[in-house]
Amino acid sequence: MAATKIIPLILMGCGGVGRQLLQHIVSCRSLHAKLGVHLRVVGVCDSKSLVATSDVSARELNDHFLSEICRVKSESSSLSTLSGFGECQVFLDLELRGKLMEIASVLGHSTGLALVDCSASSETVGVLTSAVDLGCCIVLANKKPLTSSMEDYDKLVSHPRRIRHESTVGAGLPVIASLNRILLSGDPVHRVVGSLSGTLGYVMSELEDGKPLSQVVKAAKSLGYTEPDPRDDLSGMDVARKALILSRLLGRRINMDSIKIQSLYPEEMGPGVMSVEDFMSNGLPLLDKDIEERVRKASQNGNVLRYVCVIDGSRCDVGIQELPKNSALGRLRGSDNALEIYSRCYSEQPLVIQGAGAGNDTTAAGVLADILDLQDLFP
Amino acid sequence: MAATKIIPLILMGCGGVGRQLLQHIVSCRSLHAKLGVHLRVVGVCDSKSLVATSDVSARELNDHFLSEICRVKSESSSLSTLSGFGECQVFLDLELRGKLMEIASVLGHSTGLALVDCSASSETVGVLTSAVDLGCCIVLANKKPLTSSMEDYDKLVSHPRRIRHESTVGAGLPVIASLNRILLSGDPVHRVVGSLSGTLGYVMSELEDGKPLSQVVKAAKSLGYTEPDPRDDLSGMDVARKALILSRLLGRRINMDSIKIQSLYPEEMGPGVMSVEDFMSNGLPLLDKDIEERVRKASQNGNVLRYVCVIDGSRCDVGIQELPKNSALGRLRGSDNALEIYSRCYSEQPLVIQGAGAGNDTTAAGVLADILDLQDLFP
Repeated sequence: MAATKIIPLILMGCGGVGRQLLQHIVSCRSLHAKLGVHLRVVGVCDSKSLVATSDVSARELNDHFLSEICRVKSESSSLSTLSGFGECQVFLDLELRGKLMEIASVLGHSTGLALVDCSASSETVGVLTSAVDLGCCIVLANKKPLTSSMEDYDKLVSHPRRIRHESTVGAGLPVIASLNRILLSGDPVHRVVGSLSGTLGYVMSELEDGKPLSQVVKAAKSLGYTEPDPRDDLSGMDVARKALILSRLLGRRINMDSIKIQSLYPEEMGPGVMSVEDFMSNGLPLLDKDIEERVRKASQNGNVLRYVCVIDGSRCDVGIQELPKNSALGRLRGSDNALEIYSRCYSEQPLVIQGAGAGNDTTAAGVLADILDLQDLFP
Repeated sequence: MAATKIIPLILMGCGGVGRQLLQHIVSCRSLHAKLGVHLRVVGVCDSKSLVATSDVSARELNDHFLSEICRVKSESSSLSTLSGFGECQVFLDLELRGKLMEIASVLGHSTGLALVDCSASSETVGVLTSAVDLGCCIVLANKKPLTSSMEDYDKLVSHPRRIRHESTVGAGLPVIASLNRILLSGDPVHRVVGSLSGTLGYVMSELEDGKPLSQVVKAAKSLGYTEPDPRDDLSGMDVARKALILSRLLGRRINMDSIKIQSLYPEEMGPGVMSVEDFMSNGLPLLDKDIEERVRKASQNGNVLRYVCVIDGSRCDVGIQELPKNSALGRLRGSDNALEIYSRCYSEQPLVIQGAGAGNDTTAAGVLADILDLQDLFP
């Protein structure tokens, strides 16, 4: 067995996914040792603070400390409360970005450094693009940096082997890795159709059973399947972000405003107009009849309705589509995600990838696999 | 953009898949140039001859020469007919293995070398295990080396980052890559169920429609879906080989004789007893009634029959199983392959990967993606 590979990393964002990732890293220590890899966490930051080891070139935040971070964050406290704990330094607010860049520039071209973005922030893109220039690898669960401007995108992927972002689409489902393999082999992808929202997947398959939209959304909300404001799901914006990431991966040079997004509620029921309660009680029920009619019509054609993204040539649409009942997407039930990929090799029948597309455990597992997949770039 | 990575490689086996791979390599030149990678083919061999460039450290078999190889092999001629063509050397029979080892030892630890086995031979394993010791990477479409003894297997995977074998299971379907990602992330896989034979997939879904086995197999044979002797498919040996590869990937230390394999014909109809014609006309029809009865019983339970491999704990079985009609495998139609993976992250609903699992184009595309995926190991 060769000497152990060491992957120094900084975690940005320690909400549910970030915390779960730290737990996975700790619990996989012996597995990774067997594989000859060690993940050396040199820093962890949330939106306000960075805790970093006192000597980033040689030391790490040990597993006990990582567990403390998880405890502190699960209590919704600030990382800065850890300042007295162990050999670490805490940097706040304005210092944060400068210190991150300093670490990136020290480690990027020497030991290497992976910046792992598990936040949901649109503010990290600046740090990430600069880190790429400094020789760092980046791993993203955060969709925002990849849905920023084309200029930012080009910068992020300028060293294609140094970026991984499996968990930006379908959580840990091997969607990006599989598309990358297809692209590498010169097999042109001409069409992708995906059901990429667990929430909308659940809603559409419940509608199929004849339940009214308002009742289905209420049930989904009480099951915890939706965001606190279900309109965040029903707007289709989350699916559109994933669609943009897939489109760009396939080489389309487009922005969010090129994507036709169909919202499941009209503008006059938007968050600026109605409260969540008002929308749930008075807005939603007004939409029942129309969607019921569409479900019925589709059924008459032997089809079902699915909320999907369709990438076809230069077109990228997000919204309700009528799909054959016996297609992979038509057969989908519940909150699973599914993606159909059509290419030269998969022309008559698509390549289908299907499974749970949400959840902190799965998302963090995808991030961890991404980090490990970078190991050959580290000395 | 960084300097171009050069991946020197030797192709072993230039039947359908190998030839298709050479064509893919040539047609992807500009794509790979854009990605900063160049595949430098230094040698190609079939079972009898090796053609290699005159100076393996610096030169390559150029694209014109590679096309000539494809032409010669598509005419079922020997590679040795190329001896007068361009700057190459031809080595025959007894010289072959020695010369391969010589190239591997020159390039393995200097420029690096990928040995790509697209043969169907059980004879390559010796060369491959020695090449691993010499620092080479190996890429396999050939299942035989991985289903040899545990000792050979351990040697082949002794540097896990230096071996890829996506196309040994499900052709180019991202089965191995996805399982590897799941394993790397410490997500324990407890159950895998796969329909991994296009032929048997077709047969089982036709049976479901009430057709007799003998008629279905005849149709499959005339459609070119089966081997010349359909018993090569019906024996389940090909599926068992794939099942063994998956089991070992999941860490089970087992051999072929640990796998319970259910053949679709009895021993007394075996190749040693009956000719193909006799089997098709007089053997097969005797099997119709029994299997028809099983299909009917399954249907009464709301199930369908599928010929699958099941890996569950230390168990590995290959044969007919009754599966729920509305599971991913139960819904499978025609010759597509499908794999259901159950793990901690995919516990209630499995991760499903489905699509064409055979064909030279798809298989070669999987091999090519594997080669490209090794690029970070090359200087």
